[in-house]
Amino acid sequence: MRLISRMQNSNSIPGPSTDLLTRATDVRRASNSLGQTTDQQRSDALIGMADALEAKASVIVEANEQDIERSLGEGLNQALIARLKLNKDKLKGAIEGVRKVALLPDPLGRCHLNRELSKNLVLERITVPLGVVGVIFEARPDAVMQIASLAIRSGNGAILKGGSEALQTNEVIMETLREGLASTEISPEALSLLTTREESLALLKLDGLVDLIIPRGSNEFVRFIQDNTRIPVLGHADGICHLYVDSSADLDQALRIAIDSKTQYPAACNAIETLLVHTEVARDFFCKALPAFKKLGVTLLGDAESQSYGVEGAATERDWATEYLDTTLSIKIISGLEEAIEHIRCYGSRHTEAIVANDHQVAELFLQSVDSAGVFHNCSTRFADGFRYGFGAEVGISTQTLPPRGPVGLDGLVTYRYRLRGSGQTVADFASGQNVFSHKDLPL
Amino acid sequence: MRLISRMQNSNSIPGPSTDLLTRATDVRRASNSLGQTTDQQRSDALIGMADALEAKASVIVEANEQDIERSLGEGLNQALIARLKLNKDKLKGAIEGVRKVALLPDPLGRCHLNRELSKNLVLERITVPLGVVGVIFEARPDAVMQIASLAIRSGNGAILKGGSEALQTNEVIMETLREGLASTEISPEALSLLTTREESLALLKLDGLVDLIIPRGSNEFVRFIQDNTRIPVLGHADGICHLYVDSSADLDQALRIAIDSKTQYPAACNAIETLLVHTEVARDFFCKALPAFKKLGVTLLGDAESQSYGVEGAATERDWATEYLDTTLSIKIISGLEEAIEHIRCYGSRHTEAIVANDHQVAELFLQSVDSAGVFHNCSTRFADGFRYGFGAEVGISTQTLPPRGPVGLDGLVTYRYRLRGSGQTVADFASGQNVFSHKDLPL
Repeated sequence: MRLISRMQNSNSIPGPSTDLLTRATDVRRASNSLGQTTDQQRSDALIGMADALEAKASVIVEANEQDIERSLGEGLNQALIARLKLNKDKLKGAIEGVRKVALLPDPLGRCHLNRELSKNLVLERITVPLGVVGVIFEARPDAVMQIASLAIRSGNGAILKGGSEALQTNEVIMETLREGLASTEISPEALSLLTTREESLALLKLDGLVDLIIPRGSNEFVRFIQDNTRIPVLGHADGICHLYVDSSADLDQALRIAIDSKTQYPAACNAIETLLVHTEVARDFFCKALPAFKKLGVTLLGDAESQSYGVEGAATERDWATEYLDTTLSIKIISGLEEAIEHIRCYGSRHTEAIVANDHQVAELFLQSVDSAGVFHNCSTRFADGFRYGFGAEVGISTQTLPPRGPVGLDGLVTYRYRLRGSGQTVADFASGQNVFSHKDLPL
Repeated sequence: MRLISRMQNSNSIPGPSTDLLTRATDVRRASNSLGQTTDQQRSDALIGMADALEAKASVIVEANEQDIERSLGEGLNQALIARLKLNKDKLKGAIEGVRKVALLPDPLGRCHLNRELSKNLVLERITVPLGVVGVIFEARPDAVMQIASLAIRSGNGAILKGGSEALQTNEVIMETLREGLASTEISPEALSLLTTREESLALLKLDGLVDLIIPRGSNEFVRFIQDNTRIPVLGHADGICHLYVDSSADLDQALRIAIDSKTQYPAACNAIETLLVHTEVARDFFCKALPAFKKLGVTLLGDAESQSYGVEGAATERDWATEYLDTTLSIKIISGLEEAIEHIRCYGSRHTEAIVANDHQVAELFLQSVDSAGVFHNCSTRFADGFRYGFGAEVGISTQTLPPRGPVGLDGLVTYRYRLRGSGQTVADFASGQNVFSHKDLPL
């Protein structure tokens, strides 16, 4: 956030310093070698990183205590302090996470296309690393371990920039991760930590050296990044998720799902902001829902019709487009599936929407018509998550339309390359008709 | 290009007009319905489009003649006139192209992941259309037919903006395509043509209504677009492709491949700009290559060593980074594979590189180490093309690292969506341990 306000004043991003260019080039060079390593080597590297973190646990926790002390002195708010905190248990969990990523299946070297273009001219498409990812994140120091392990596992170098609050913690963690790598066949140069704000701005200008920017922070922060770099950005805009309670819904089930989708972790982007209720079941639904939400401290803001059923607050046009990120829920009574779909198209952010319905046809139409990264039937929107999808770990959730979309795991950190093996073929021979294309798919 | 110079003066892009917003919203709405259609309906729509074009062939050719006459009067250069020209034969070829796209396998509804997350909670990932693509292209009016057919086949709406030279041709073609659609189950509203420069600038600001911008033009043009929109751009930077002649190469084969890679169509992005020759075979290679290139009118610019073998011109540092797009070829003598890879990393644009070698190990190391969209062994770089890869048609070639990379066919115009079907599951039940994840992959 401070990054943004600073920028809006200066309105020009400094170019990278010689030092930064040198460091980025080092990471790039290391990533070239990393791309040639085997599954086992990369997996072992993560185990080396985890072992080193374990050995240095107390040093890391101490550094974090100093960061917290300093931040408290600087008046950092409690929510950020909570995110900054990395005690022994949280660190243990993060180290376990690194070990889990080591065990995930190799995302590299997968062949998705194997095609004979012509006799002795065979094309294959295989997954390869992106190269170097640049990650800019706020407070949470555990992100360093998570991102570094995902990057190395997928054969990518990583340049990380954390928040200044966590500076000492991040520095010790990075030093430890590099020590861990030094005992393996992966070069420690593959990981680099930026520490100044100037560097993180200049990171946006490293096209050619950095292949993907992953910003982890507020929507405003992600948009700022998108507007100021030519490097592709993996980010998410608002998470304005909807739950539609159809007239065919089991109302008890609908209420349980609504409560989970709203209150299980209201600050998450996959929590719902708006509940759409079919007019035919509105009265019955609210009979049960109003006391339940009240008990849970949920503030309800409704349209005129839902207010007539006892919703106390009034929702304005603006509410339909607001990501509350807290226990506020807007409510609209609607005439049916079509209006639900239309409302979602108009106000949704294409993140995740769910329907509760026992009418199979209605549910399938919803699943087919709503174009969000996740479209769910009879379950909570909170399932939209890399771990719950079984990806083992995630770099984030993308609300962009293009792939990678939705929760992004290791597969989102790879791209592909076409390899063509011939025996002297020229295009001129095909143009003249001397040679012909067969385009025959071979077994993968 | 005029778009760019205009922009650099004004330095601010106008917002979309109400008219443009209305039209873009119409395309978006039509694309929503288009996303629900069957393979057959979309295939039939293309046949309807092709039939209409055939019926109106003479009107289209006449409009094109008027465009050419006007452009000649305005002093348009011969190269652009040639691209603008759409005579009966070229039109016939373009219509055949539309029919071929109708026959391509459906890119939609493919299931790439089918996973039981827990009992009665099943996740699937299926391909869906992007939504609306915005295409900005120069002279060639056949692009309208090609892009429109690829867009409709993949379930996408399309907003097209062609060059003003081809205005009348483009307008008649678009009118005809929409007439063709009117006789099918696909709404003609799915296609729209922009005609003014203001509109094509405003197109860049239609985030939320347009999901992908495809600029077809010069590198400078593509960069301008990338710098001025938040919408993802499918574009390519320079095509600085290399051919490396290893010491183990069959030199006759190497020469044939070098000639094809350079001269078969020098203006293409997949033609080579630099030839790297292993020092051990340089003398022998140039003995044959120099007269052959001379005969073909290729201008050679070499480093000091290659000049000692008779290459006449001198290559400067700048040449290694230049995309000539004509029959100029820069030449460098190198010490071996490692230097070749290093040179390519330093100066290449990650488009396509090839090696000629009979040493299998050297060739495989090249295929593994060079991180370009295409890496070829013993064949011409000119094979880097959607048609030659067997994609049936292409929207362009992407030199971006992230997918879609390399030649982009119908598959590049789709994304995916996660569908989750449950039976009342909440995340709270999993958090409490009452329910557990199974993460079991099911047959696709």
